[in-house]
Amino acid sequence: MSAPTRSHGRKSIRASLVPGDLMDEPADLVGAWKARVITLFPEVFPGVLGASLTGKALQQGLWQLDTIDLRAFGEGRHRNVDDTPVGGGAGMVLRPDVLARALAQAGRGTPDDRALWPVVALSPRGRPFTQATAQAWSQARGVTLICGRFEGIDQRVIDAFGIEEVSLGDFVMTGGEIAAQALIDATVRLIPRVLGNHASVEEESFSSGLLEHPQYTKPVDWEGRTVPDILLSGHHANIASWRQAEAERLTKERRPDLWRAYRAAHGRDPDGDQEL
Amino acid sequence: MSAPTRSHGRKSIRASLVPGDLMDEPADLVGAWKARVITLFPEVFPGVLGASLTGKALQQGLWQLDTIDLRAFGEGRHRNVDDTPVGGGAGMVLRPDVLARALAQAGRGTPDDRALWPVVALSPRGRPFTQATAQAWSQARGVTLICGRFEGIDQRVIDAFGIEEVSLGDFVMTGGEIAAQALIDATVRLIPRVLGNHASVEEESFSSGLLEHPQYTKPVDWEGRTVPDILLSGHHANIASWRQAEAERLTKERRPDLWRAYRAAHGRDPDGDQEL
Repeated sequence: MSAPTRSHGRKSIRASLVPGDLMDEPADLVGAWKARVITLFPEVFPGVLGASLTGKALQQGLWQLDTIDLRAFGEGRHRNVDDTPVGGGAGMVLRPDVLARALAQAGRGTPDDRALWPVVALSPRGRPFTQATAQAWSQARGVTLICGRFEGIDQRVIDAFGIEEVSLGDFVMTGGEIAAQALIDATVRLIPRVLGNHASVEEESFSSGLLEHPQYTKPVDWEGRTVPDILLSGHHANIASWRQAEAERLTKERRPDLWRAYRAAHGRDPDGDQEL
Repeated sequence: MSAPTRSHGRKSIRASLVPGDLMDEPADLVGAWKARVITLFPEVFPGVLGASLTGKALQQGLWQLDTIDLRAFGEGRHRNVDDTPVGGGAGMVLRPDVLARALAQAGRGTPDDRALWPVVALSPRGRPFTQATAQAWSQARGVTLICGRFEGIDQRVIDAFGIEEVSLGDFVMTGGEIAAQALIDATVRLIPRVLGNHASVEEESFSSGLLEHPQYTKPVDWEGRTVPDILLSGHHANIASWRQAEAERLTKERRPDLWRAYRAAHGRDPDGDQEL
């Protein structure tokens, strides 16, 4: 059986890490934000997170990724991790004893304060993940993510470990691994030095409460389709006004929920639109 | 330069596919649902989609994944794909001419009707992806997904190709690749025979309009924590009532938006709760 904890990024090249060490607390990169992922499919990590800006930051030691193989903590010779729901019903439920053992492993060397180290299960039953969640997690020392592949997790282990259930959105996936990668990506990019000059965090969607205005680039004339004249005017105030109006139009059209919140935050009648 | 289109799954083992063929329409698995992904990082696919149930279905030819390397369609000797925003501002915008060439490649052999083959850009500006979107896409013949890695896509190419902007949620990621994998996973699992007996699509979250009730499995006594007595009673009607009440409680607590929609759909005052 392979060691249940595997590290990615800068630490993974340390030849001195023997399986005995890996059974204990994962070796720490001092100051690095840490993601520990409990999964039946450790081989799919780092996946997309190993490419592009998150991959570069992983290699630079700006963050650290440890996978914990849930199967290693299973019951019996087949290392079962799930069983049928008590009270009947379809699907399989992750056993509390098995997950508790994996969580004990994941918890070594981490603070008990869940604000400093959230312990999260990916589930459509959870509270929706938002940019505010990503910001809060990026301020923590790390996060433990449990990837389900079943009908659910036994409620007793959720209660016993103070597990926060988080949802990627109102849709169902075959497992939590992609959702875990999405949450880690959104969080890691907020860690200082990860984005570098590649993007402006300030000007993005959600920081203003509005969706982003349309964008245009070269060529100015593309097969007879030209960019709006105002963007070529060089008049910065007019350009800013046009972009604000477009952002408002798009938000109102596509996201009435965000639009109402934006109107309320700016002291206007959330359901009125006469003023526009 | 490598061929811009690469296939995964059953078709990828056909040794007869030479680069010349790949420049044309990707070879089709008859009847298979198809995902074509335009990306600067084709090497991160199939990623998580190659594991577990989606990976097995890919090998069985129940669906097909083609990646189209955006870089291959870039401008000049550096194959640039982006440029600065017209009118000023931070970040880079994906060029319309470059993306149009990749879309022409992705579109070969696909129906023009966007209901039969949606062409989608992953963007926080988009309409939120939901289970209803996954269901609609699973009825289509396939989908083309454009993974952005920039401030945005030139609006002219969005208009010219009838591109649908779709958002994974109210958070920002470094790129669209993880979001694409999430959307494909949620869609592929709805294709007949992909899930097999592994899950009950009917009993899941969102099909009832409520979040799922808590689940319990063995052991019945876990470190002194027992499962609710009612689940051990064998009284199916009482168990069903308990689960319904728990599902309502959780939905009301975590998702007031879903709860209001559920109440309205069941002919009750969406904001009242005296009846509970």
